[in-house]
Amino acid sequence: MEKKKTTIVLFSGDYDKAMAAYIIANGAAAYDHEVTIFHTFWGLNALRKEELVPVKKNFIEKMFGKMMPRGANKLPLSTMNMAGMGPKMIKGIMKKHNVQSLPSLIEMAKEQDVKLVGCQMTVDLLGLKHEEMIDGIEYAGVGAYLGDASEGNVNLFI
Amino acid sequence: MEKKKTTIVLFSGDYDKAMAAYIIANGAAAYDHEVTIFHTFWGLNALRKEELVPVKKNFIEKMFGKMMPRGANKLPLSTMNMAGMGPKMIKGIMKKHNVQSLPSLIEMAKEQDVKLVGCQMTVDLLGLKHEEMIDGIEYAGVGAYLGDASEGNVNLFI
Amino acid sequence: MEKKKTTIVLFSGDYDKAMAAYIIANGAAAYDHEVTIFHTFWGLNALRKEELVPVKKNFIEKMFGKMMPRGANKLPLSTMNMAGMGPKMIKGIMKKHNVQSLPSLIEMAKEQDVKLVGCQMTVDLLGLKHEEMIDGIEYAGVGAYLGDASEGNVNLFI
Repeated sequence: MEKKKTTIVLFSGDYDKAMAAYIIANGAAAYDHEVTIFHTFWGLNALRKEELVPVKKNFIEKMFGKMMPRGANKLPLSTMNMAGMGPKMIKGIMKKHNVQSLPSLIEMAKEQDVKLVGCQMTVDLLGLKHEEMIDGIEYAGVGAYLGDASEGNVNLFI
Repeated sequence: MEKKKTTIVLFSGDYDKAMAAYIIANGAAAYDHEVTIFHTFWGLNALRKEELVPVKKNFIEKMFGKMMPRGANKLPLSTMNMAGMGPKMIKGIMKKHNVQSLPSLIEMAKEQDVKLVGCQMTVDLLGLKHEEMIDGIEYAGVGAYLGDASEGNVNLFI
Repeated sequence: MEKKKTTIVLFSGDYDKAMAAYIIANGAAAYDHEVTIFHTFWGLNALRKEELVPVKKNFIEKMFGKMMPRGANKLPLSTMNMAGMGPKMIKGIMKKHNVQSLPSLIEMAKEQDVKLVGCQMTVDLLGLKHEEMIDGIEYAGVGAYLGDASEGNVNLFI
């Protein structure tokens, strides 16, 4: 029997929305779906390395790089962000309830062979370089996404 | 013939987005789909009772409870909220155009047997208690959602 | 063989989200899908003509008309909008990378016979008039959307 397929476009760069995306992705992988998360625009920030990677950038690229959060742990909340207080509070509560953090959900997705894709067009637009991104990411375009999604049982845009 | 299925993840706690979710859900139910709305994160606020329900909470849970809107009628707009002016204006216009309010769309969904689910994990994270939520809600996890969605004809994340 | 179908509800009035919607739509059309974009709420702003069209409106409709951006080129960014600086920067970068602007993506969608639909209920709520909208738009309700979506291979809410 053919495997069920789940695809998620992660457009948002918010901690809570990325959590929802990765929880659904990990759940689907646990139910033996083939799962792809296609990161585009601000969703790419979840895939940035935490450390500053020295790469050559032009002025605008440098500025974008500085203004956008560096990695999953730095993402803001979509609601009640309160200048960074919100994410701290939520992370504290998550720990108490034994809910996995976003970086650990991403790690788990990799272990479950969820395909993590970065949209090359928006990587270029936001001036990101592959060296700045965590390992294990593929880069592709809308065609590859549509190939997966048109066979998908569950397709979401987050 | 098997019934068509529609599932909606309602992540957003915005009045306009929740309206869109419930209008699609009620439409699908009218076309004889089996419909599930899975409320997670801020989408749970649409299911809170308007009145203050006395429940035992810790400090953080109390704080969250106070900061989050209590019930469908209190939700902000995603755009042009203008400190609460926007929702008032929209509700006035809706009345004039005989468009149902969000609380009445939720009532209608229940009457049409739309399955309203609260995500238990985020209920816990946000410190909500079942007594604070309107009646007729089931509580479940991502597994139940995926069971429905993987059979769904229309699956949306709002 | 029957054609694959893609439907997108464009709820958002943000430049970047509308871009994502139209890039996916144009991609799907290029892969020979039948594609529908159903514009509702703030997503309708992407379809407004840039020029001021003299139409009769009541006070609230006039106010909404003034506060909402007039046309695809005027939409804000969902993130890093910075009072209009963000969209200018992104558009500059897009030009440099030969990425099509949103107005030109909409034009391309029309040429590829993507069906562009405006949600009549929210057109009325926001006080928009058909004369203010670009040509080639159909107007319909949630029933028409669900008819398309329930046959869809890829259904997204953006």
